[in-house]
Amino acid sequence: MAKILKDPGVGYKSNRNAQRVIVNGNSNVKHINRPRTIDDLYTYLINIPWLFFLTYVLIGYVLINTLFALIYYFIGPQHFQVSTGNNIEDLTHLFFFSAQTLTTVGYGAIAPSGILGGFVSSFEALLGLTSFSFITGLLYGRFSKPKAKIKFSDHLVVRDFEEHSALMFRVMNKRVNMMIEPELNAVINITEKDENGEFSRKFYELSLQRNKVMYLPTMWTLVHPIDEDSPLFSYTKEELKDLEVEIYILFQYHEEAFNQKLYQLHSYDFSQLKIDYKFGISYEFDEHGFTIVNHDKLNEIEKM
Amino acid sequence: MAKILKDPGVGYKSNRNAQRVIVNGNSNVKHINRPRTIDDLYTYLINIPWLFFLTYVLIGYVLINTLFALIYYFIGPQHFQVSTGNNIEDLTHLFFFSAQTLTTVGYGAIAPSGILGGFVSSFEALLGLTSFSFITGLLYGRFSKPKAKIKFSDHLVVRDFEEHSALMFRVMNKRVNMMIEPELNAVINITEKDENGEFSRKFYELSLQRNKVMYLPTMWTLVHPIDEDSPLFSYTKEELKDLEVEIYILFQYHEEAFNQKLYQLHSYDFSQLKIDYKFGISYEFDEHGFTIVNHDKLNEIEKM
Amino acid sequence: MAKILKDPGVGYKSNRNAQRVIVNGNSNVKHINRPRTIDDLYTYLINIPWLFFLTYVLIGYVLINTLFALIYYFIGPQHFQVSTGNNIEDLTHLFFFSAQTLTTVGYGAIAPSGILGGFVSSFEALLGLTSFSFITGLLYGRFSKPKAKIKFSDHLVVRDFEEHSALMFRVMNKRVNMMIEPELNAVINITEKDENGEFSRKFYELSLQRNKVMYLPTMWTLVHPIDEDSPLFSYTKEELKDLEVEIYILFQYHEEAFNQKLYQLHSYDFSQLKIDYKFGISYEFDEHGFTIVNHDKLNEIEKM
Amino acid sequence: MAKILKDPGVGYKSNRNAQRVIVNGNSNVKHINRPRTIDDLYTYLINIPWLFFLTYVLIGYVLINTLFALIYYFIGPQHFQVSTGNNIEDLTHLFFFSAQTLTTVGYGAIAPSGILGGFVSSFEALLGLTSFSFITGLLYGRFSKPKAKIKFSDHLVVRDFEEHSALMFRVMNKRVNMMIEPELNAVINITEKDENGEFSRKFYELSLQRNKVMYLPTMWTLVHPIDEDSPLFSYTKEELKDLEVEIYILFQYHEEAFNQKLYQLHSYDFSQLKIDYKFGISYEFDEHGFTIVNHDKLNEIEKM
Repeated sequence: MAKILKDPGVGYKSNRNAQRVIVNGNSNVKHINRPRTIDDLYTYLINIPWLFFLTYVLIGYVLINTLFALIYYFIGPQHFQVSTGNNIEDLTHLFFFSAQTLTTVGYGAIAPSGILGGFVSSFEALLGLTSFSFITGLLYGRFSKPKAKIKFSDHLVVRDFEEHSALMFRVMNKRVNMMIEPELNAVINITEKDENGEFSRKFYELSLQRNKVMYLPTMWTLVHPIDEDSPLFSYTKEELKDLEVEIYILFQYHEEAFNQKLYQLHSYDFSQLKIDYKFGISYEFDEHGFTIVNHDKLNEIEKM
Repeated sequence: MAKILKDPGVGYKSNRNAQRVIVNGNSNVKHINRPRTIDDLYTYLINIPWLFFLTYVLIGYVLINTLFALIYYFIGPQHFQVSTGNNIEDLTHLFFFSAQTLTTVGYGAIAPSGILGGFVSSFEALLGLTSFSFITGLLYGRFSKPKAKIKFSDHLVVRDFEEHSALMFRVMNKRVNMMIEPELNAVINITEKDENGEFSRKFYELSLQRNKVMYLPTMWTLVHPIDEDSPLFSYTKEELKDLEVEIYILFQYHEEAFNQKLYQLHSYDFSQLKIDYKFGISYEFDEHGFTIVNHDKLNEIEKM
Repeated sequence: MAKILKDPGVGYKSNRNAQRVIVNGNSNVKHINRPRTIDDLYTYLINIPWLFFLTYVLIGYVLINTLFALIYYFIGPQHFQVSTGNNIEDLTHLFFFSAQTLTTVGYGAIAPSGILGGFVSSFEALLGLTSFSFITGLLYGRFSKPKAKIKFSDHLVVRDFEEHSALMFRVMNKRVNMMIEPELNAVINITEKDENGEFSRKFYELSLQRNKVMYLPTMWTLVHPIDEDSPLFSYTKEELKDLEVEIYILFQYHEEAFNQKLYQLHSYDFSQLKIDYKFGISYEFDEHGFTIVNHDKLNEIEKM
Repeated sequence: MAKILKDPGVGYKSNRNAQRVIVNGNSNVKHINRPRTIDDLYTYLINIPWLFFLTYVLIGYVLINTLFALIYYFIGPQHFQVSTGNNIEDLTHLFFFSAQTLTTVGYGAIAPSGILGGFVSSFEALLGLTSFSFITGLLYGRFSKPKAKIKFSDHLVVRDFEEHSALMFRVMNKRVNMMIEPELNAVINITEKDENGEFSRKFYELSLQRNKVMYLPTMWTLVHPIDEDSPLFSYTKEELKDLEVEIYILFQYHEEAFNQKLYQLHSYDFSQLKIDYKFGISYEFDEHGFTIVNHDKLNEIEKM
């Protein structure tokens, strides 16, 4: 008999619409009353898409220069050798002066001659260098942050397997690197109406034929045999289709590209289940002896 | 019977006022005769608050520029095309020249014409770039340093649980990330007056119903059942209140934000104990199926 | 009897020319239909040889400056104080102006006087600083990326050993550091024609006399005893020579130079097998008591 | 009886003067015929003392500027607005021009006017920025490289302990941080003259009363009980003094300052052995309840 887990860490509450904390690898959790800190800013700037990041840099650059142009304007354009009599033109030149100071280009065609302008521009240059130090850190942080790029097959399949049947799904590394020491642990959660009409939610470990290998250059098909020890053993294939089931997965492997152990969360529910299907062959060999991994085949399933 | 630990690593000495090496997650230890190295400077600059760090940068900038302004002044203002006859004004302009050199802005309106001024400013520019390299490293170090942000509930509670009672406390991640493979190990230390009137201090491992889970999106309530195997089994609830007890905790989990395993220390004593209380529900579900974690609820306890 | 592995993670398909996924530590796998992302660019720039990297930087520098020189030329050379009447000369000077802007040198001998030139050069300076931030990150990433530098002996040897014989090979660290907690795991794959004339491929764990040590300053000879438990036990030395065998190795150790656990893959086949050879002595002691490791001796084998 | 280790990874060869691969935590190994790579340069620059590193930066700066000054001199001082007729003075000014270009200060008082000077200075500025990118990476690498700072007591002591006696030594963290999950593994090597007059060298694991703790704010005394299971059991205290013994230690712990697991090697021999001594108390409590760790006490031993 399958052993019920005491507390799998994802909660017991039975509410048919709200149990899944992971949907397609993304968190389904919202936080309220969470105090924010400056570290959140770093995490935010590290995780936003590149387009956003570069746009922020550009907007920040324009805003800071506009601000300093205004400050310099109030100090007086004549202190920067740019007094043309035309306010807009003066402001524009002071914007350029600010940009030349912030980036430390400092052509010198526009340069501070008075005390106040000298001070403000000295500190603008400091601000500029410190900001670019910060951007350097962010750029490095963005690039070097290890990201697990494990892709899970869209479907779960149930097919005949050895004496009984088996539940299968497939994972692959979207990078060209091998997965070193990949390991997959999963919990299966079955929600059923009990005799009182209340939903009862039970968690079990999902036993796999093999949940850890040495290394893997290609896809990996995970096999849960539906035998006497499986919590799914008592259901017919027909019943499985309508069963309310979630599978929570923690996948870990050593990623060569970053030389780090990476973790990836995923979840399935049984709306993704295909009965009597099998996965297609995911790799072949070419005439030169190379193993060819076709990334498009991850989701290929065939009716048995 | 609870097994006594030989050497838990926190010392045996019995002194009622001085045992706790961790108070609210902070070290209660002072070091004397510790040789300092330059690495301590890095660790210091990485760990001080942002306001301190930025103030140090600013002060350093002003000091270095003042120093170089003085050096340039002794070389002679006329060598930098800034001889106004007014000493203060000359020094101010040389301060600007220094700032323009240190930050490598180099407008050129003020520029060295003599040999000595040329040499000194050449090395000031080198100093400037090297300093900003250093600041870049510090900024990145500050941001990327993984910090465990696990919060422990203010109170321990003891409540009826299954056949006996249980000691409970709660942890949560202050980040939005899930805690991956969280694991908690704890040692409990009971100090009692023995028949000779001396304090005897005993350490035991604090067994938990479950001390490791796969991943956790919400809070985690740790449960120590006060059963036959617990060192607390022989005490009544009333006696527990007055018992001199410390609990030393090592919490570890994989933090997604930094992709690193983080550790956090914590300790409780029984002045934080609440008898016959239970923790409030820490999360709920909204109408869209999201799990809502309310960070304010961590410390919510209710009289049973 | 040797235990057959169910799924070693390197596939079952029998195809005599295409099984090896690792050849001399390099991947023998090609990927098709793999979606590329910007992260691949970082991984690419981190992994290319230094000469390529520096050439890319140089080419990028020339291209960007050429582009901006053209833009400035269309804005009009007269706006940059470089109108000589000679187009080529003007373009060359604008190339210099661009370089002075991109690197933020900004001598000022050439400087923008108009609005458009002011704007474009302001953003070129931003582009320049951001690019050098990026290069800083790449340089650090290139240097700090931990790379396992474990070298495997060219040959496997089989020699008499204790009561039976043994298969041996040797590893060493190409760095001066010791290997801390080195551990080697291996899978052996034997392909044989079965009675139907079809190739049957079987995998076994390769048991080693010792597969983990505390630390190792010198070379390490790995010993697989060919005893009753070995899948090679049923073959004579003559038969071994012609046997179709691959050995897949995962080597891991803690590298002091980077303070990280590193992994290295390797594979052997039996074309690298030498029967009745033994490895030469890999280290000696000098008169001052130092252990001398001779890196040239890794591959030294002698006829027994 | 103590179990002899098959292959402890430090070699069997018996040569009384040459066995120790670790002396006071430093490697006693020399490498010959080791191919060098550019990565060795990084490792070298990361590990040299600060004074060396900064001297290298300074020397490099002077050399590069001298080189470029010479190049500019051959191009012709008149192309940089610095033709004074005096060669030395011209070269000096061109040195300044080079420094202003390399650091991107670019005052502009000296600036290239010709084509060749323009090209060379454009690439010098590129070289400058790339070099400072490199220095930034090195500075960060130097600071952020985790270094284990575990100090071992100078002496081993043997003292009466429980029913028999025990061998003890002490470790502490030179940082203010606690050692989290410290673990110590050791191998003991006893060299004896056998009946043939040849040296026989035997290795055993050194069993410890406790070799792993949760965390440690203070010093840690490691205890090897010399009981029936100890390879030292058959020797009297007098014999121990003259015994040829080495102890190889691998110490690991999680260092909070860098959030990394660090390893440190150490070795003892019995010339460091003190019979019938004990270690002094290493910490005390002050009136405010703080634990005071006195770093000077690590080596304090007292005659029993």
